[in-house]
Amino acid sequence: MADKSVKKVVLAYSGGLDTSIILKWLQTEYGAEVITFTADLGQGEEIEPARAKALAAGVKPENIFIEDVREEFVRDFVFPMFRANTVYEGQYLLGTSIARPLIAKKQIEIARKMGADAVSHGATGKGNDQVRFELGYYGLEPDITVIAPWREWNFKSREALLDFAEKHQIQITKDKRGEAPFSVDANLLHSSSEGKVLEDPAVEAPEFVHMRTIAPEDAPDKPTIITIDFEKGDPVAIDGVKMSPATLLTKLNELGRDNGIGRLDLVENRFVGMKSRGVYETPGGTILLAAHRGIESITLDRGAMHLKDELMPKYATLVYNGFWFSPEREMLQAAIDYSQEKVAGQVRVKLYKGNVTVIGRTSPYSLYDQDLVTFEEGKVAYDHRDAGGFIKLNALRLRVLAKRDKRG
Amino acid sequence: MADKSVKKVVLAYSGGLDTSIILKWLQTEYGAEVITFTADLGQGEEIEPARAKALAAGVKPENIFIEDVREEFVRDFVFPMFRANTVYEGQYLLGTSIARPLIAKKQIEIARKMGADAVSHGATGKGNDQVRFELGYYGLEPDITVIAPWREWNFKSREALLDFAEKHQIQITKDKRGEAPFSVDANLLHSSSEGKVLEDPAVEAPEFVHMRTIAPEDAPDKPTIITIDFEKGDPVAIDGVKMSPATLLTKLNELGRDNGIGRLDLVENRFVGMKSRGVYETPGGTILLAAHRGIESITLDRGAMHLKDELMPKYATLVYNGFWFSPEREMLQAAIDYSQEKVAGQVRVKLYKGNVTVIGRTSPYSLYDQDLVTFEEGKVAYDHRDAGGFIKLNALRLRVLAKRDKRG
Amino acid sequence: MADKSVKKVVLAYSGGLDTSIILKWLQTEYGAEVITFTADLGQGEEIEPARAKALAAGVKPENIFIEDVREEFVRDFVFPMFRANTVYEGQYLLGTSIARPLIAKKQIEIARKMGADAVSHGATGKGNDQVRFELGYYGLEPDITVIAPWREWNFKSREALLDFAEKHQIQITKDKRGEAPFSVDANLLHSSSEGKVLEDPAVEAPEFVHMRTIAPEDAPDKPTIITIDFEKGDPVAIDGVKMSPATLLTKLNELGRDNGIGRLDLVENRFVGMKSRGVYETPGGTILLAAHRGIESITLDRGAMHLKDELMPKYATLVYNGFWFSPEREMLQAAIDYSQEKVAGQVRVKLYKGNVTVIGRTSPYSLYDQDLVTFEEGKVAYDHRDAGGFIKLNALRLRVLAKRDKRG
Amino acid sequence: MADKSVKKVVLAYSGGLDTSIILKWLQTEYGAEVITFTADLGQGEEIEPARAKALAAGVKPENIFIEDVREEFVRDFVFPMFRANTVYEGQYLLGTSIARPLIAKKQIEIARKMGADAVSHGATGKGNDQVRFELGYYGLEPDITVIAPWREWNFKSREALLDFAEKHQIQITKDKRGEAPFSVDANLLHSSSEGKVLEDPAVEAPEFVHMRTIAPEDAPDKPTIITIDFEKGDPVAIDGVKMSPATLLTKLNELGRDNGIGRLDLVENRFVGMKSRGVYETPGGTILLAAHRGIESITLDRGAMHLKDELMPKYATLVYNGFWFSPEREMLQAAIDYSQEKVAGQVRVKLYKGNVTVIGRTSPYSLYDQDLVTFEEGKVAYDHRDAGGFIKLNALRLRVLAKRDKRG
Repeated sequence: MADKSVKKVVLAYSGGLDTSIILKWLQTEYGAEVITFTADLGQGEEIEPARAKALAAGVKPENIFIEDVREEFVRDFVFPMFRANTVYEGQYLLGTSIARPLIAKKQIEIARKMGADAVSHGATGKGNDQVRFELGYYGLEPDITVIAPWREWNFKSREALLDFAEKHQIQITKDKRGEAPFSVDANLLHSSSEGKVLEDPAVEAPEFVHMRTIAPEDAPDKPTIITIDFEKGDPVAIDGVKMSPATLLTKLNELGRDNGIGRLDLVENRFVGMKSRGVYETPGGTILLAAHRGIESITLDRGAMHLKDELMPKYATLVYNGFWFSPEREMLQAAIDYSQEKVAGQVRVKLYKGNVTVIGRTSPYSLYDQDLVTFEEGKVAYDHRDAGGFIKLNALRLRVLAKRDKRG
Repeated sequence: MADKSVKKVVLAYSGGLDTSIILKWLQTEYGAEVITFTADLGQGEEIEPARAKALAAGVKPENIFIEDVREEFVRDFVFPMFRANTVYEGQYLLGTSIARPLIAKKQIEIARKMGADAVSHGATGKGNDQVRFELGYYGLEPDITVIAPWREWNFKSREALLDFAEKHQIQITKDKRGEAPFSVDANLLHSSSEGKVLEDPAVEAPEFVHMRTIAPEDAPDKPTIITIDFEKGDPVAIDGVKMSPATLLTKLNELGRDNGIGRLDLVENRFVGMKSRGVYETPGGTILLAAHRGIESITLDRGAMHLKDELMPKYATLVYNGFWFSPEREMLQAAIDYSQEKVAGQVRVKLYKGNVTVIGRTSPYSLYDQDLVTFEEGKVAYDHRDAGGFIKLNALRLRVLAKRDKRG
Repeated sequence: MADKSVKKVVLAYSGGLDTSIILKWLQTEYGAEVITFTADLGQGEEIEPARAKALAAGVKPENIFIEDVREEFVRDFVFPMFRANTVYEGQYLLGTSIARPLIAKKQIEIARKMGADAVSHGATGKGNDQVRFELGYYGLEPDITVIAPWREWNFKSREALLDFAEKHQIQITKDKRGEAPFSVDANLLHSSSEGKVLEDPAVEAPEFVHMRTIAPEDAPDKPTIITIDFEKGDPVAIDGVKMSPATLLTKLNELGRDNGIGRLDLVENRFVGMKSRGVYETPGGTILLAAHRGIESITLDRGAMHLKDELMPKYATLVYNGFWFSPEREMLQAAIDYSQEKVAGQVRVKLYKGNVTVIGRTSPYSLYDQDLVTFEEGKVAYDHRDAGGFIKLNALRLRVLAKRDKRG
Repeated sequence: MADKSVKKVVLAYSGGLDTSIILKWLQTEYGAEVITFTADLGQGEEIEPARAKALAAGVKPENIFIEDVREEFVRDFVFPMFRANTVYEGQYLLGTSIARPLIAKKQIEIARKMGADAVSHGATGKGNDQVRFELGYYGLEPDITVIAPWREWNFKSREALLDFAEKHQIQITKDKRGEAPFSVDANLLHSSSEGKVLEDPAVEAPEFVHMRTIAPEDAPDKPTIITIDFEKGDPVAIDGVKMSPATLLTKLNELGRDNGIGRLDLVENRFVGMKSRGVYETPGGTILLAAHRGIESITLDRGAMHLKDELMPKYATLVYNGFWFSPEREMLQAAIDYSQEKVAGQVRVKLYKGNVTVIGRTSPYSLYDQDLVTFEEGKVAYDHRDAGGFIKLNALRLRVLAKRDKRG
């Protein structure tokens, strides 16, 4: 199956066991020059060690790319997605999905710069990530060759894989030999756990699968109250302190973690067709979603808000399915971004043992008119009798229908 | 303004101060025979006392209708709405909205039976409820006369209203003379608080506005774990005990209340055009929504689920705006109900200090196939290589586009 | 009812009988200084005569505004709407709807410039146009006073109206005394006929109601073939001749008229709640819609096209209902415009006795890849076997479902 | 590649060259017992000759299934689809798409009855039909083996294929040896032509590709006027003569053909990812769509109609992509069918040289109220002043927004 014509391949390389095996496999099976790309997406692990491992595997120094992309990740991917209040299947905050297009983009950029003719990733053949990576690759560089080792190689079992690793002097940490109890993905937005111990959706997820949050039960008995400032739909400060996107999300993650916020145990529908069960932790994102809805609630017109709510499920599915670099996602983003111009102000949020509660919102652009809802006249006059006509004309078609159908 | 030709009017009568004033006003201003309808919707107050009050106001015994409609309310209104996972503006569970069509329906039924030519309600001229009541009336009985006292009478102030009450010997409880700090609606699904002390959305809602739930902070330190059984998308049992719809929701409310579940502080967009701030408590409904999503997650096909998610915002807006008795709500219901045939099984839910967490789901109709997501073959065989073709064809249009546009 | 505090009012003035009566009524009833605004929207009548009439009615010369807005109308309203392939209720090209926001905008601009405190229009109380005008006014100038004479005055009959006209020396053309057989609206995009002779939807519209098109039966026996050039989704040239927007639409109208193109006999649903029957003639617009779909068919990606098709009905309803100046229409426009960047090229269209047929399309940005659909490999390689995987994974969820449900 | 374990395969067999080659290939390559299924879908060719050909190819008499499915096709597939006013990409009436699920269903039924373990079809690897067939198979019988010869065999060219045919004594009609100028599909709803001479979308389709319609230019100079009766959204009579579904559609096809109606030249987006150009002729369907919209225009409430219009693009895409037997298509159908209960009455349609014009509609369930649109009061009273309140409240949010944003 190996396409011997491949000369240079850019591999999304974490430095972990699986991508180390892939690195070696690309070298031996394809005879290709491997370029490694290792990104700090906020996964919470050092990325520099990947350099030594790559060197040890025979990668040329100039072929090793290590980059901290946290700011770009949050600014250009996470925040735009949160402008849409995006949740997949009513609940999932898309923490894994949103990172893949960025990695794909970086790989393509490196491939162009280095004259590579192929890209490769470590996603398996049953998951969504292979789709997200590859739609990203193809959508940016249509003629690139994509190598998906998990779909190509002939290792029949985990054992065979580990034998290959051993044979090529790839270090296998002790616990990898044993059955790892679940598989993990992590970045600055979230961590996810899947598989093994989680595979029976009838059985509660064990506490130890959680990496980013303490249990609500273990969180402090006193609430934490913070304020978040927004500009153009994006958070820009916590408790009045301006922060860069990644710094701010990091801070929200800490606040969320400490208050047991952002856990989700979900059975979801994969794009490739099966249901799977995952445990997600999105501490900062969970706070951000609530706060963003809070600031929108006073600054966004009803028409804009309802249109956003109607478009959101489609937007979420596009991101989940890997269509970030598609005209339809970009069209929806254009509509959403248009709506966020005046989504600015301050939201007060109470964090307490797993709960995120918006307890106050203010904005220089508030559309909330206190006078309008009281007996008094507001900035815009309101005449009670107008409601009569409003109802009458809204009712008209229903009345004509009732005449015909003798309902009720 | 009073239409002197009105002979008999069916009033939605709670027995409280406002509808007592309306009762008297209909008698004096319209010279109409008043029929009172008082429903037990689970608002948590005795309804029988309304009889004595109506009699005292001169209503004929045969014109007093008092009915416990809790089962009908939950079975025919609340549960159908929850089949759609309905939330308005991302958060509100529509507790007030969903009760109005039932009251309207009952009033129309009584009007037909008693030969009344008009109906009346106590909703004000700035709110959504007037719309919901009246669209219900007109949608069922197109020629009915609707009397909306709050839009018609000439009382210039709360004082003038109370003077009218005093003049007609309507009892005014002491605290009503003082400024009531907020206004309230309640039924078996929820309670809501609005106005006065809540009018500044920047200020946290005071603890005392809550009626149905204790604060998460005051809830037990130990989680409560329950199971909920579903059939055709509706809950039918708690912890294995079969219950009628209203009994079940009552039980969920208790569980929710005791665990500080279901509070919502929201600025929402009213159909009549302004934003308003409300505090809602939907303890049982909040549990039900989570559990329903849980059972759907293993029994509903992706296509059905995503279609439901796309339709939901429209459905929610229809309910919120008062279009329950409309062809489009009924069409959506037909689609939703079609999807619920096999939404059955059991969900385990953990309740803890404001959190509702689905921790397990089982179903005789589960579509979750444990084998499919592992390395093993599932009931339906999965070939990793299929994913390659799947991605290639999904990417095809994006590649053609990238060829043209030289993106990235 | 007349608000005597109104000082200056800007009237949308055609110079015809109805708005002449309104002009006089505003002067006499409100005692207001009237400013007239007369626009050339391409209605096919001279607008200069309106000046003499206004002067004769006592309007000060500096209060008479006459403007040719055809280019602005087509460029900023008609073309943006056609980018969305907009049709209301599957058929109506919205010729009347799209003109109202422009008139409203112009009136508000004049009101600001002249210090007027009110605006007025001649639309009746049963139609959509009153809504479109007034939502435009309010959406641009929230405190403006709106005078809608047809909803306010007390003329009980057409006779009373004409008596008022006579009393104030307003010229009544002979045929106006008689029952006019239908009412008319016209601009550069279309003409519409409604009412009277058209009110029975069972009866065919008589030939004489048509103003802009000859009957297909009377059109030439030989087809006319033209080419239309597009840039960024808008037509820019006919048969290679570059034209301004209004000039181009005028030319398309001539071509359509001569070939019997663009007639529509429709029963539609008004925003105010009733059904009405109209006969519309949109000769140039009908050609434009077909041609625009034609150029999109080769330049627009499937994802973009399908998203546009899904959004269109909502967009059409917003325009029809008068929400041009609303955040949700603007959000949709942002999405649509984003998609049109490369909608450019040339379409050949055959016009023949009522038919518009796209017979050829070319584009420098074509996404059509002749090689892809043949047995040969295209610019982007296509492997037949990919289809197997594509189908398998698309089928996966259906197979799991079939396993459960034993369908068929 | 051939799965030698296949014992019996049900082939969708037309009797033509391609499926005759496939029949033989299944016998020789798979060593499988072949069962042929030949359906009369109204393609306009005799199906009985397929029996002799199958026998000649060695198929056992009891393995030959020939069935006239025209009534089922129209009643259970075509009419339900037309209830939704379905058009794909704004124009295509889905004539090919809608026939595939029926064929798939029949093949599965035969496979079950005959104990076959596989099904096969003659669709190529670049088209939509393979997807439609196979999603149908899998959705009804998840464990069936699917054989798609065009994706599997190794014939490198048309020549190789014909050599195989000759070798196995399959008759090749003279013109098949030459380059056929385009490929064809046909059934009672439509015929389609694709490929070869049509592949350049810049070049007009030649007259000779049309099979079902005469050119508008060749149609009679006098219009034909017919009436169509509807019940529950389906046509039931022409000119007062009741007809079965297939008879009625056949009659409409004749009327359409004779008047040059129903031609479409389209570049469309295939599900498999590329654009293709087709010429479609749907004479009867084109009339039916116009007439159905006509009867809906007076019998369907606005809410129902607009919801249908919003759902339609999704419904069309599902049918086009082959998801007929999917929960989401069935959910949409449930909603659509719910709306059609009172879509009944009579539509008069004028047919003239390619044009279909609705010129009259009547219904016992008409919602059109002539009085409502005139100055007179209708069945439901209309008060002009109600429009004032209606507009005011619709404008309220826009005014609050304008206050904030100082627009215009």
